[in-house]
Amino acid sequence: MKLLEERIIRDGRVKEGNVLKVDSFLNHQIDIALYNEMGKEFRRLFPGDAITRILTIEASGIGIACAAAQYFHVPVVFARKTHSINLDDDVYTARVRSFTHQREYDIIVSKRYLTSEDHVLIIDDFLANGCAVNGLLELVYSAGATVEGVGIAIEKGFQKGGSLLRGRGIRVESLAVVESMDAAAGTITFRRT
Amino acid sequence: MKLLEERIIRDGRVKEGNVLKVDSFLNHQIDIALYNEMGKEFRRLFPGDAITRILTIEASGIGIACAAAQYFHVPVVFARKTHSINLDDDVYTARVRSFTHQREYDIIVSKRYLTSEDHVLIIDDFLANGCAVNGLLELVYSAGATVEGVGIAIEKGFQKGGSLLRGRGIRVESLAVVESMDAAAGTITFRRT
Repeated sequence: MKLLEERIIRDGRVKEGNVLKVDSFLNHQIDIALYNEMGKEFRRLFPGDAITRILTIEASGIGIACAAAQYFHVPVVFARKTHSINLDDDVYTARVRSFTHQREYDIIVSKRYLTSEDHVLIIDDFLANGCAVNGLLELVYSAGATVEGVGIAIEKGFQKGGSLLRGRGIRVESLAVVESMDAAAGTITFRRT
Repeated sequence: MKLLEERIIRDGRVKEGNVLKVDSFLNHQIDIALYNEMGKEFRRLFPGDAITRILTIEASGIGIACAAAQYFHVPVVFARKTHSINLDDDVYTARVRSFTHQREYDIIVSKRYLTSEDHVLIIDDFLANGCAVNGLLELVYSAGATVEGVGIAIEKGFQKGGSLLRGRGIRVESLAVVESMDAAAGTITFRRT
């Protein structure tokens, strides 16, 4: 998506350790006009009427999922992160390992809002190692629901999450795929398909 | 706001301890059409061109703030919750006490996205004791920014947060103010002004 790539080039900051800071428009401060264009693009990439729910994870995925939901006309459900083991029978749980923060946490979603009837589009802001998306997939499978696809704002194409998911036959659509970044030069190269 | 009150009556669940569960449409599963109507209503309640930024807090505030931002045409900034003391010079920090979870945490916002030039509308899903809003106000004051008002989806009118804020001269607009709830009867009474 040209608009997002241009914005990343203009306002993204490349830091040592393959860190891409996009907090001026994507995941701390939010440009809602950009979000809405991203939402429209997800709709274009996942046409048809199969999708019944959008599933995301707090916190950065929520706004993007909401923007997209306007064009899919389906509810958003966001998985909550929790640091305590949840023994509630009313929730599905998955364990997620965060490479960024070097820790593990559980994510939960209420069984009320994810059922075997659902066809789910997973949306998140970043895809790198795929840990968050894998956790969300586990929730979907626990519910007996169907995964229609995964929509990502920015994929780090040089990390393995995207290729592993696609290798499992899951449709992954990323609006921008970063092929490489150079912190010293401050340059970003996008994948061309 | 009639639409929100009707939805609370229809789908809200009153639990012991003055707990109002609205996770089927507001803060776990999200009805985006309702969010957009709420966003329009906030715009009607805060007219004019003074507001330059909407400030909220992760996680449940983000979607509502994004919906509202579409009608204000300003960026959203969401404060992040953190459990570690943040010594970063680039952020404003405030301490928040959560009555729901019986613990304290810090919230942070980057100094890049909240400045003395800003006129801020604070948005959140719930107002009860006002702890989260007070933390957000502290961030705004730390930045030397101006508070234009506070927009809340559901205020628990029987708790002190709203009256304390209004007593300080802060304009608080809540789309639904719950005057009382009865868990045994499952009834909810709204404030009429």
